[in-house]
Amino acid sequence: MSDILSKNTVLKALLDQHLDDLATREGLEKKVILEGIAKGTMVLLGNPAHKKVRPILVGQPSAIKVNANIGTSPLCSNDDMEIEKLHVAEAAGADTVMDLSIAGNLDAIRTRMLESTYLPLGTVPLYSVGQQLLDNEREVSSMDPEELFAEIEKQAEQGVDFMTLHCGISYRGARMGAEKDRVLGIVSRGGSMLARWMLENKKENPLLEQFDRLLDISLRHNITLSLGDALRPGAGCDAGDTAQFEEVLNLGVLQKIALERGVQCMIEGPGHVPMHKVRTQIEAIKTLTHGAPLYVLGPLVVDATPGYDHISGAIGGAIGVTAGVDFLCYLTPAEHLTLPDKDDVKAGVMASRIAAHAGEVALGTPRAIAREEAMNRARRDLDWEGMKAQAIDPEMVTKRRGVHKDEKVCAMCGKFCAVKMVQDAKII
Amino acid sequence: MSDILSKNTVLKALLDQHLDDLATREGLEKKVILEGIAKGTMVLLGNPAHKKVRPILVGQPSAIKVNANIGTSPLCSNDDMEIEKLHVAEAAGADTVMDLSIAGNLDAIRTRMLESTYLPLGTVPLYSVGQQLLDNEREVSSMDPEELFAEIEKQAEQGVDFMTLHCGISYRGARMGAEKDRVLGIVSRGGSMLARWMLENKKENPLLEQFDRLLDISLRHNITLSLGDALRPGAGCDAGDTAQFEEVLNLGVLQKIALERGVQCMIEGPGHVPMHKVRTQIEAIKTLTHGAPLYVLGPLVVDATPGYDHISGAIGGAIGVTAGVDFLCYLTPAEHLTLPDKDDVKAGVMASRIAAHAGEVALGTPRAIAREEAMNRARRDLDWEGMKAQAIDPEMVTKRRGVHKDEKVCAMCGKFCAVKMVQDAKII
Repeated sequence: MSDILSKNTVLKALLDQHLDDLATREGLEKKVILEGIAKGTMVLLGNPAHKKVRPILVGQPSAIKVNANIGTSPLCSNDDMEIEKLHVAEAAGADTVMDLSIAGNLDAIRTRMLESTYLPLGTVPLYSVGQQLLDNEREVSSMDPEELFAEIEKQAEQGVDFMTLHCGISYRGARMGAEKDRVLGIVSRGGSMLARWMLENKKENPLLEQFDRLLDISLRHNITLSLGDALRPGAGCDAGDTAQFEEVLNLGVLQKIALERGVQCMIEGPGHVPMHKVRTQIEAIKTLTHGAPLYVLGPLVVDATPGYDHISGAIGGAIGVTAGVDFLCYLTPAEHLTLPDKDDVKAGVMASRIAAHAGEVALGTPRAIAREEAMNRARRDLDWEGMKAQAIDPEMVTKRRGVHKDEKVCAMCGKFCAVKMVQDAKII
Repeated sequence: MSDILSKNTVLKALLDQHLDDLATREGLEKKVILEGIAKGTMVLLGNPAHKKVRPILVGQPSAIKVNANIGTSPLCSNDDMEIEKLHVAEAAGADTVMDLSIAGNLDAIRTRMLESTYLPLGTVPLYSVGQQLLDNEREVSSMDPEELFAEIEKQAEQGVDFMTLHCGISYRGARMGAEKDRVLGIVSRGGSMLARWMLENKKENPLLEQFDRLLDISLRHNITLSLGDALRPGAGCDAGDTAQFEEVLNLGVLQKIALERGVQCMIEGPGHVPMHKVRTQIEAIKTLTHGAPLYVLGPLVVDATPGYDHISGAIGGAIGVTAGVDFLCYLTPAEHLTLPDKDDVKAGVMASRIAAHAGEVALGTPRAIAREEAMNRARRDLDWEGMKAQAIDPEMVTKRRGVHKDEKVCAMCGKFCAVKMVQDAKII
């Protein structure tokens, strides 16, 4: 038995229960899964306190996963709407959701989400503490680290499956991020709060100093730590700078300590990265963090595309997957502009699923290749039901075919259909 | 003076008239433009008979251009709607449009489009001939090549600026494309008609055999030949096969002959190509066609994404640009399903513009980099007017900001704005 399972008994129990199912779903040998978890290159998301959860694996060679961020904001807070978005994300094929709520009754929203979904749920516990501060017009610097640890413990007990915790941003890193070297200093909400706390108090990051306390909590609930990238580039021109890699180095050190204690970690990654730097960024981060599952936000390859950032993110995400990315956090058309609505949630999940699939096809993943082959055979045969079955959004196929849905050909070409033209040729 | 200008006097007159403006618009030295045109790595689209035309350059280092395909289909034919789509394409920032109409009065639609737009207009003359055949239930094999040459001449006189002509598909290539080696034989509409004609008549492609006649017509009107890729892969798994490259080799030979005669050529490219093969495809095609401007349809990196092919195409297009692609033909969300509507046209143009911009940023093109820098400075300053000015779709910024458009922060984060959080820190 691998070391991690002897140390993390909650994880062991979860694996005992779900390993057969996971192996079937992923099309992987059990041995591959156990080895990946032991090495820390794969993690199993699932907190037993989340009663409905269907645990999932993150980390290649398991399938690339997609996360959808939902949650209230101070300018747009409606719990029912967020639950609707949760179900839209599920239906669109998201593998996880993160509740990033920062307005309303956060405990109520979170527990309602946990009760409503079988998808592993992630959070950023710092947001709850931040909300208390900002809503009460308290200075960010007045945060007591004990409030943060208490919040983490509470959310673990509620059943949160994975948590973004910005453990790697040091006092030194916060100064680097806030300095004028960067065009866009710090764009991580949690990271910016922690940085401000450190800079105003002249103190080290409590999540870094007291990392052991997080490990204790994690072990009791199999919380997967998603080590946050507070200093990810917020502009393509900042990608790969000293501030970013100061934090990545720390994340690698922390991931090793966590694994040693039996705690599962993912690494969060960029962010805004121009296309020609995506591969080197991903390879560098994966190396520095010992192959831990890499969870990226984008990467967004250009910044001039507000309203279309799901597309800019899909370009970076697809390339990222071929370079080692394991888990894609969606970007929606609303990114950088407003809170996503239901349509944005669907558009975001679809864009990330396209990136994941494109990356897997390029990597030669058997299931992705089989899907493409089946789609193309269906196209050759003008078999619309077959195409629908392989499409990432079967409903869309029916919807767009519209009144012409029973035609053999499509409404773009009609009798000019090239496929039919050659098939009908009388070649002696 | 370069050789091509002494042979193509229509082009020379056009250049004399527009060179200053082109140099300014492209931010290039006139010398660079003249050299590019002389070498055939750059073309100037513009037929003087298209009265309103504003000629444009295609070919790096001039900016990457984007084409929008519009036009009627047998199942959806409405001239007014196509004119509306034309204006949507213009407003969205397309650089050219192609009229791919295959239903209704094609002469009327085409001349109306030419009268309506300043964008260079492209066509596929074979469609008009094909429409006559299909509408009259004549066998494709009964086409008289003289009908095709007459159609090309007529359209040149009407003012069409560039024409897709499938000159490179040989009888040998047609057989390769139609054989069972491919999953999806021939997916080019014009190409499939020509292939059927050749296979049923056991004759060589008249556009290949009588290429000189095309050059004569082109020279009289400065028609840019867009040498079509009848055998482009229609499925990712077919990319790079013998049939495809049999045609590419012919295109390279023809491009050289054309340039020698003073006729400008572009090369049309794939198509369906998995991500890991995009770079090698583009580099191979560019080499075999002597660096002529490469005009690609996608490339679509996956096939299982009907309804979202503009995204799959943007991934391939962006990578393609970094490998040498000069001109992107859009794909819309309707591709493979139905005729695009106005929303699809806008979505398609935007997706291709994102791909073009992402590629140019990766290549370090000064104008693209400057745009990114200005966007990021505006973001840092929470300067929404500045962001709007740099956004590829300024209207979208206003639309999505909605009721919160006068707020300093956006409705995603509100007072949790990370940028503000760090800027407001009291660091002594």
